[in-house]
Amino acid sequence: MEKILASWESLCASSGGLRFLDINLRSIGQVMFQDNPLTGILFLAAIAWGSYVAGVPQVAIAGVLAVVVSNLTAHWLRVDTESLHSGLYGFNGILVGLALATFLAPGALLWVYVILGAAVSVVVMLATTNVVKPWGGALTFPFVLTTWLLLLATYGFSGLAGRALPSGSIVTAFQPYQASPLQLIDLAQGMFLSISQVFLKASAIAALLLLAGLAVSSLSAAAFALGGAILAVLTAHLFGAESDLIIGGLLGFSPVLTAIALGTVFYQPSWRVVAYTALATVFTVITQSALNVALTPFAIPALTAPFVLVTWLFLLPRQRLEPASAVTRDAEKPA
Amino acid sequence: MEKILASWESLCASSGGLRFLDINLRSIGQVMFQDNPLTGILFLAAIAWGSYVAGVPQVAIAGVLAVVVSNLTAHWLRVDTESLHSGLYGFNGILVGLALATFLAPGALLWVYVILGAAVSVVVMLATTNVVKPWGGALTFPFVLTTWLLLLATYGFSGLAGRALPSGSIVTAFQPYQASPLQLIDLAQGMFLSISQVFLKASAIAALLLLAGLAVSSLSAAAFALGGAILAVLTAHLFGAESDLIIGGLLGFSPVLTAIALGTVFYQPSWRVVAYTALATVFTVITQSALNVALTPFAIPALTAPFVLVTWLFLLPRQRLEPASAVTRDAEKPA
Amino acid sequence: MEKILASWESLCASSGGLRFLDINLRSIGQVMFQDNPLTGILFLAAIAWGSYVAGVPQVAIAGVLAVVVSNLTAHWLRVDTESLHSGLYGFNGILVGLALATFLAPGALLWVYVILGAAVSVVVMLATTNVVKPWGGALTFPFVLTTWLLLLATYGFSGLAGRALPSGSIVTAFQPYQASPLQLIDLAQGMFLSISQVFLKASAIAALLLLAGLAVSSLSAAAFALGGAILAVLTAHLFGAESDLIIGGLLGFSPVLTAIALGTVFYQPSWRVVAYTALATVFTVITQSALNVALTPFAIPALTAPFVLVTWLFLLPRQRLEPASAVTRDAEKPA
Repeated sequence: MEKILASWESLCASSGGLRFLDINLRSIGQVMFQDNPLTGILFLAAIAWGSYVAGVPQVAIAGVLAVVVSNLTAHWLRVDTESLHSGLYGFNGILVGLALATFLAPGALLWVYVILGAAVSVVVMLATTNVVKPWGGALTFPFVLTTWLLLLATYGFSGLAGRALPSGSIVTAFQPYQASPLQLIDLAQGMFLSISQVFLKASAIAALLLLAGLAVSSLSAAAFALGGAILAVLTAHLFGAESDLIIGGLLGFSPVLTAIALGTVFYQPSWRVVAYTALATVFTVITQSALNVALTPFAIPALTAPFVLVTWLFLLPRQRLEPASAVTRDAEKPA
Repeated sequence: MEKILASWESLCASSGGLRFLDINLRSIGQVMFQDNPLTGILFLAAIAWGSYVAGVPQVAIAGVLAVVVSNLTAHWLRVDTESLHSGLYGFNGILVGLALATFLAPGALLWVYVILGAAVSVVVMLATTNVVKPWGGALTFPFVLTTWLLLLATYGFSGLAGRALPSGSIVTAFQPYQASPLQLIDLAQGMFLSISQVFLKASAIAALLLLAGLAVSSLSAAAFALGGAILAVLTAHLFGAESDLIIGGLLGFSPVLTAIALGTVFYQPSWRVVAYTALATVFTVITQSALNVALTPFAIPALTAPFVLVTWLFLLPRQRLEPASAVTRDAEKPA
Repeated sequence: MEKILASWESLCASSGGLRFLDINLRSIGQVMFQDNPLTGILFLAAIAWGSYVAGVPQVAIAGVLAVVVSNLTAHWLRVDTESLHSGLYGFNGILVGLALATFLAPGALLWVYVILGAAVSVVVMLATTNVVKPWGGALTFPFVLTTWLLLLATYGFSGLAGRALPSGSIVTAFQPYQASPLQLIDLAQGMFLSISQVFLKASAIAALLLLAGLAVSSLSAAAFALGGAILAVLTAHLFGAESDLIIGGLLGFSPVLTAIALGTVFYQPSWRVVAYTALATVFTVITQSALNVALTPFAIPALTAPFVLVTWLFLLPRQRLEPASAVTRDAEKPA
């Protein structure tokens, strides 16, 4: 694996076209924090498969168009080369493209929207990075903000129509219902779809491709993704969330990202870090439910906002989790 | 008083158990900015009394459980010892516990919620402190954010039901009504309940216990609390707010906190500081009414968000209120 | 022109009253970033004319009262003299006054509100400036925040009634309609009113006075205002926005401000800056539509929030647009 990547890197160094391809693949991998073109290929396969089986091939096309536009915009804005080459200016763009084509009906203006959104996501990426630099990365906040604004605006534009947008209503108490209890198979499906919904896909095969993409780059990331998905599904089940949301992975994709981000962002994993990540993952499920509710009056989806909010909250005090020295190791447990 | 506190401090220094008790009492006192265990005892008495007469003893228990969980979490996260001993990592926790048990129906999941919320409030405290360090403290923002998310989420969870949550609706103009004008006795009740509602209690006796708790630590804090409550009730009355809200203290608890924070946070009180604090207190009443309205579609209470917002706004430019030197004293009045 | 301003400046230096008049005129000019008393006079004429023809003379009076109160408050808070003399502490105040008198019914409490809002806008200006200093100015955020809170609060106050506030509703999809296509004359009107709506006026004559006010201070600012208005109207038309909103200038006033801010804030204008500003201007139209929708449940207007949000987003990464040196000039075009 290392050898393949090394010879690919030397090919890219000698060809502008291959370098640009490499940047776009890494951008796709960066949606789950992997700076790796192989991961990007597997993720792209997951996107293509998920779009194909759902009968919406335009979604995959919009994603690819958006990542290319994002990276061209980043080049034009003369971002620093290292970040550009690592795919850091493209991962929000591909999500903008996938989300717009998922939630809006096809049409000429949709493509204007995709190009516009991809370009703006780079500006928002630069802006957010400058603000949050002291404590962490921009995460997918540029995707969330740009897409929210573009989707909200369509309610005032007759040229763009919703296709799969939630309908607006005021907040009302959840009506508990007499459902057959969830089977183990339901929970397993919820776990897989929690992973594929990171790319707005509901497909177990896409989830396996995504896990493979993570594994080729980082086994630890794949493990935390899986662990996060399981914990999210169980938490949602414990609190009595709606079965459709659990099985569809719609309460789990943000927690999956939280688990990868917090569990693999610290240099020396430890039981303390695992416990801290678990707390954050559980709270991301709560926050997902909360933002689903809070966005009801606006008739837009929460996207990955719960992941961004909780991960920022749990990254800000991160100095508290630096590897304990031998001296303080005894103090690890609470009194 | 000084002597009692000094011998108590030496007892705590020699016993881990007493120290932990001391930390939790100071945490309760810090809800109103008092780093004083006696204040904590009197505040705890107010909470217990208010919960007892309202027939909700579980609220007081949830508050005590939450403050203990918060301080254990803070210890586990290895926060700095000085802040921990001053109770700075527990005052948001107790408010989370009181609010969850006040607004949600009792049940096993409520206690899961209280423990989870208390633990997360410490992370949010660390996060907020890091962000706002340049200009002030975290205030009760960790309480507000954590509780909002937990309450919003319940609308998607059948396992947790609201007990005293507001019902959602879109914003509609206030219908003026032919009420008998407020009597002086109503205004007096509004003033007292404005103080007790800081701890989500509607009890004049609790208010007196809270004022006593403030007075043993700082006469100035007690005076600003009382003055803030009077100003808030009069302002709300002037603008024609709903009588029930005024009399119930529901427009006054945030202004009370604003008055204590701004009026006693500056080293050398002066008429300029009093005037500035009065402006902020009046604007907190406006902001309370505004957030009550803004949160209507979400069916959650504003909690102390108006206090946090206005106090941050008025703390940010605080260099303008540093004690005037003799030379510039003449320029104190506007032209 | 230069000579008139120079002799005016020397007059002001010798008279406190004239200096204070100068400060208030510059404050009015600063709404569109012009530190120029002549601009202020022409802008004031535009406000007076627009209020007169709309039959709401109290709006102009509220604006003047508010700018005076703001500058007195700033003086009392001992802000730095240079910023005070440049009018930086008054431009939010005048907008608060104009907006409150436009959206609320006349009455004694309206004037209390105007004075209170004008005073608070200075505190929010100081607070915001301290937060955003690293990357830009406060823009009209103090106006937006202060006015939002004051307007929202009225829904809980029987003493203050709305006059022209939007009515609240949940978000529903825009109903496309069979309208006669917009004529060139409609687009021209939309362009002019986009400029006058910066001061909440719907008057082409006011727009011409505003353009004249810009031109005496900066031809470039006048050109970007006009260009921004044209681009905004065309963008809104392309996406199928409601004709009434386009013709009334209600989707264009924020983009006009974005165009002036970004197009004339960089020292050495270039085609790159023009392209960047155009992207931001188009995205401000989207954001205006988005915030119009997002604020529907709250029944308050978006004011200039879209301008503030987009301009901050596009200012934050501004180092990317510093004038290219001769060496890097070749890299200006994307690959």
